[in-house]
Amino acid sequence: MIKISVMYPNTPGAKFDHDYYRDKHMPLLEARMGASCKFYTIDRGLGGIAPGSAPTYVAMCHIYCDSIEAYVAGASPHQEELQRDIANYTDQTPVIQISEVVVGNS
Amino acid sequence: MIKISVMYPNTPGAKFDHDYYRDKHMPLLEARMGASCKFYTIDRGLGGIAPGSAPTYVAMCHIYCDSIEAYVAGASPHQEELQRDIANYTDQTPVIQISEVVVGNS
Repeated sequence: MIKISVMYPNTPGAKFDHDYYRDKHMPLLEARMGASCKFYTIDRGLGGIAPGSAPTYVAMCHIYCDSIEAYVAGASPHQEELQRDIANYTDQTPVIQISEVVVGNS
Repeated sequence: MIKISVMYPNTPGAKFDHDYYRDKHMPLLEARMGASCKFYTIDRGLGGIAPGSAPTYVAMCHIYCDSIEAYVAGASPHQEELQRDIANYTDQTPVIQISEVVVGNS
């Protein structure tokens, strides 16, 4: 299994609407991707490891798929619609990474 | 629930022993933290979103706990031993972030 991690930098003054992201954007992505999205998770950044420090990312999502090919097949036909929705919740450009899930939640 | 994300930068020439991390370090952390670690996951970076691009992080782990207090209570008594083990698998200093789990694997 692979995961696509979409990580939004916590730059000073960054806009991020966590409610919209949880209630609208990610359900939209899941609906559009269909079965190619096995499941997804969402994180809200609380802080760094030093007490009182800021988190590196204000929010992240992780989209789990059987393979990179499954992700591309599920997401690419809807890329324009999904990207157009981003302005509704953030002004940040995310860092995106594809990873192999070495140990999942077992 | 909260998660501690430990993200190892994929700097050129970075050392990272994925086998040691999976088979030795993370099981050691879990054993030392006991019940305060609900579970953990491990990722191995494959690439960025552009085909052929490098991943931002060579590896990540995510440690799930009931609260920040539970994490501190479980990990801090063993911090020295756990940190001493890091040199056995990497020469990288990780980016560490604490997040609220907004949507988990349900």
